[in-house]
Amino acid sequence: MKVEWYTDFVNYNYKPKKNDLVCLYEFKPRKGVSIDEAVGRIASESSAGTWTTLNRMPNRMKKVMAISFEVRNNFVKVAYPFDLWEPGNSPQLLSGIAGNIFGMKALDSLRLVDVSLPQDYLKRFKGPQFGIKGIKKIFKIKNRPITGAVPKPKIGFSAKEHAEVGYETWVGGFDLVKDDENLTSTSFNNFEQRVKLLTKMRQKAEKETGVTKSALINITGDVRTMEKRAKMLHNYGWEYAMVDVVTTGPAAVQTIRDVCGDYKLAIHAHRAMHAAFDRVPNHGISMLFLGKLMRMIGVDQIHIGTVVGKLVGTTEEVTNIQKEITNKIVSEEKDKKNIFMLKQNWGKLNPTLPTSSGGVHPGLIPDILKVFGNDICLLVSGGIHGHPKGTRSGAKAAMQAIEAFNKKITLEEYAKTNKELNEALGKWKRMRPI
Amino acid sequence: MKVEWYTDFVNYNYKPKKNDLVCLYEFKPRKGVSIDEAVGRIASESSAGTWTTLNRMPNRMKKVMAISFEVRNNFVKVAYPFDLWEPGNSPQLLSGIAGNIFGMKALDSLRLVDVSLPQDYLKRFKGPQFGIKGIKKIFKIKNRPITGAVPKPKIGFSAKEHAEVGYETWVGGFDLVKDDENLTSTSFNNFEQRVKLLTKMRQKAEKETGVTKSALINITGDVRTMEKRAKMLHNYGWEYAMVDVVTTGPAAVQTIRDVCGDYKLAIHAHRAMHAAFDRVPNHGISMLFLGKLMRMIGVDQIHIGTVVGKLVGTTEEVTNIQKEITNKIVSEEKDKKNIFMLKQNWGKLNPTLPTSSGGVHPGLIPDILKVFGNDICLLVSGGIHGHPKGTRSGAKAAMQAIEAFNKKITLEEYAKTNKELNEALGKWKRMRPI
Repeated sequence: MKVEWYTDFVNYNYKPKKNDLVCLYEFKPRKGVSIDEAVGRIASESSAGTWTTLNRMPNRMKKVMAISFEVRNNFVKVAYPFDLWEPGNSPQLLSGIAGNIFGMKALDSLRLVDVSLPQDYLKRFKGPQFGIKGIKKIFKIKNRPITGAVPKPKIGFSAKEHAEVGYETWVGGFDLVKDDENLTSTSFNNFEQRVKLLTKMRQKAEKETGVTKSALINITGDVRTMEKRAKMLHNYGWEYAMVDVVTTGPAAVQTIRDVCGDYKLAIHAHRAMHAAFDRVPNHGISMLFLGKLMRMIGVDQIHIGTVVGKLVGTTEEVTNIQKEITNKIVSEEKDKKNIFMLKQNWGKLNPTLPTSSGGVHPGLIPDILKVFGNDICLLVSGGIHGHPKGTRSGAKAAMQAIEAFNKKITLEEYAKTNKELNEALGKWKRMRPI
Repeated sequence: MKVEWYTDFVNYNYKPKKNDLVCLYEFKPRKGVSIDEAVGRIASESSAGTWTTLNRMPNRMKKVMAISFEVRNNFVKVAYPFDLWEPGNSPQLLSGIAGNIFGMKALDSLRLVDVSLPQDYLKRFKGPQFGIKGIKKIFKIKNRPITGAVPKPKIGFSAKEHAEVGYETWVGGFDLVKDDENLTSTSFNNFEQRVKLLTKMRQKAEKETGVTKSALINITGDVRTMEKRAKMLHNYGWEYAMVDVVTTGPAAVQTIRDVCGDYKLAIHAHRAMHAAFDRVPNHGISMLFLGKLMRMIGVDQIHIGTVVGKLVGTTEEVTNIQKEITNKIVSEEKDKKNIFMLKQNWGKLNPTLPTSSGGVHPGLIPDILKVFGNDICLLVSGGIHGHPKGTRSGAKAAMQAIEAFNKKITLEEYAKTNKELNEALGKWKRMRPI
């Protein structure tokens, strides 16, 4: 067969097959490039096309050509044949649907908004090992968020100081002590030492409080280093490994998912660097897609934004991501003009617990829970360590704010009988940090 | 000590220490945020700061605070103390200098332009195993580019067809047959089968031509899969492994660098997905930085753009990247208003061979060699397979174009006595594809 340039990659009568992968892109053609040419080139460059006519074409050409089949304003849906994809290879998926196309001169900008994945594709990935139920079971928690805090400043404490702040966080009522994204193993806070000291402090805190405490200890590094660190966490009885999933990358996360399966460790995914490619509204890759990719690969918790905190992300964006990573069935979301999200059936893959963090203090907790409900991992760090009476009081204040919300009492009312909350509100009120 | 918010992270009298890492960012403060606040927050969030005052500060706070020390228009230089960093951990570097800061509400946009790395930091990374000299030695080539082609269309051929097109490419005079970024192992073109058939065809081509031929076979996948594939390439006597370095990610690339060290395989780095974060001029991460990161980790070849091809990238950008990945000493580049590039001493780390590809045909080769010189890996794919007489003639035409350039003869003149080049010019002339 002969493929005639990009036009063969466009068919507005095409109905996607059950096993097609369907992508949603927002695009802006370069001046002088028609809509048809733009969407044809997107489908072509991300599947089997090139920029010129060729002399020899494989017989199976039809089976590997993507088809742009629906355009609505600046959004296009592209169907990718199942045969294009290697089962269980997440980097290859990105090299196709999120690869060269972002750099094509024929477009001024391009954003990968979402992808709808067929069951047969999804089932070759493991998905989250624990899921939300599994995570909540660790702590025997039902009707409140999992709570956690990073010792702040995010880096600078020795392993000993870090574990001490951790202890205060736990006995104040929090479930988790968390490393921050840039703390791995430094000369002054060595990974091994931190694990050992946190293990000791957790035993103490569990003994005193009578409840389960855990930690999100950052194993981020090259893959062999992460494997060693995961093994150590397992040997010391920890439930989680934390990974910076964007700066390590999909290949490493997929392998660490296998490793953590062997060690029965839940994966906490920090998303540092996501905003390098998801912040500009009309270019790059959406956080919705990143969340979806990470659920597919199988992280148990992932940061998705706070709405009210110091980092960007609107309520609509954040709740769409929440739906995507927690629901079994996701519906297409659109208004009269645009499509924002595709349908997805997650089948047997577990949900991922959304994590909310960044500039949170007790005064903001009701606003956050109104958006997310109780099925979240809520991180309050500066907002407890900055409490006028210190970390332990700060953790108490945050737990009181959660109780107040769940009892449907205003913070100001609840603060009358809860002094830690009262002190926190005295410092921060309802201030929204930038 | 007490850290007073972001102001303690700014000091215009600060002189960077020998072992500081220095970053160059382009930034745009949100309306109402001063320059000082903006640059203070960049330094703070990417090192040891948080958004509120704290009760307890580690004694070593001064040793882990980044300092914004020079502002020029919208560019700022930030110095990061050596102690912040774990030796040999590339993902951690990104989690710091390329992490949360891209998503701060205090900024409208932020771009990581470059980083200047001290010798003591660099020496914990391996750098390229072969470098440019080592690569050229494989082929015993001195005064011309290494040439290669992807069988096109980029995906769709069976392993057998792929190897046949590869054979034609080799006997036409090219050094390398390359997989494309989205071809890994599919139902119709299995990795193992492709390796076996290419091995057979290479023997044939080497026997017929009497010169060394090789291939860039794509091992992209999760890390365990890549390890297996690298081992197979080694066992079958290949010289290279190809990796999609952005879609796999830095942790995987660092580990694969170790694996390829064991197997004596050069790494060819495809950069698919880079334009998701480097294309928007004032946000994200520059290709210059990505190139630098990959030289540090140790890829032997990396795609850096064509200037004249189908993908974006200006001459200045591309030549700066070329300098960065090939020179031992790199100087700061600036004009009266802006700084574009920081100084760098690469010490003992080998250079990386720049790869130029995407929409190239014989008519464009002189323009490309004028920019890059002969120390490049030049990929011409559609531009040989689309030759009116087929792949072999296409490869000949491209080799003739290189000869013409190096003999300082115009293509049109050289085409008079070289029919393949003449036929190629007849089809494409000097056309620049978009």
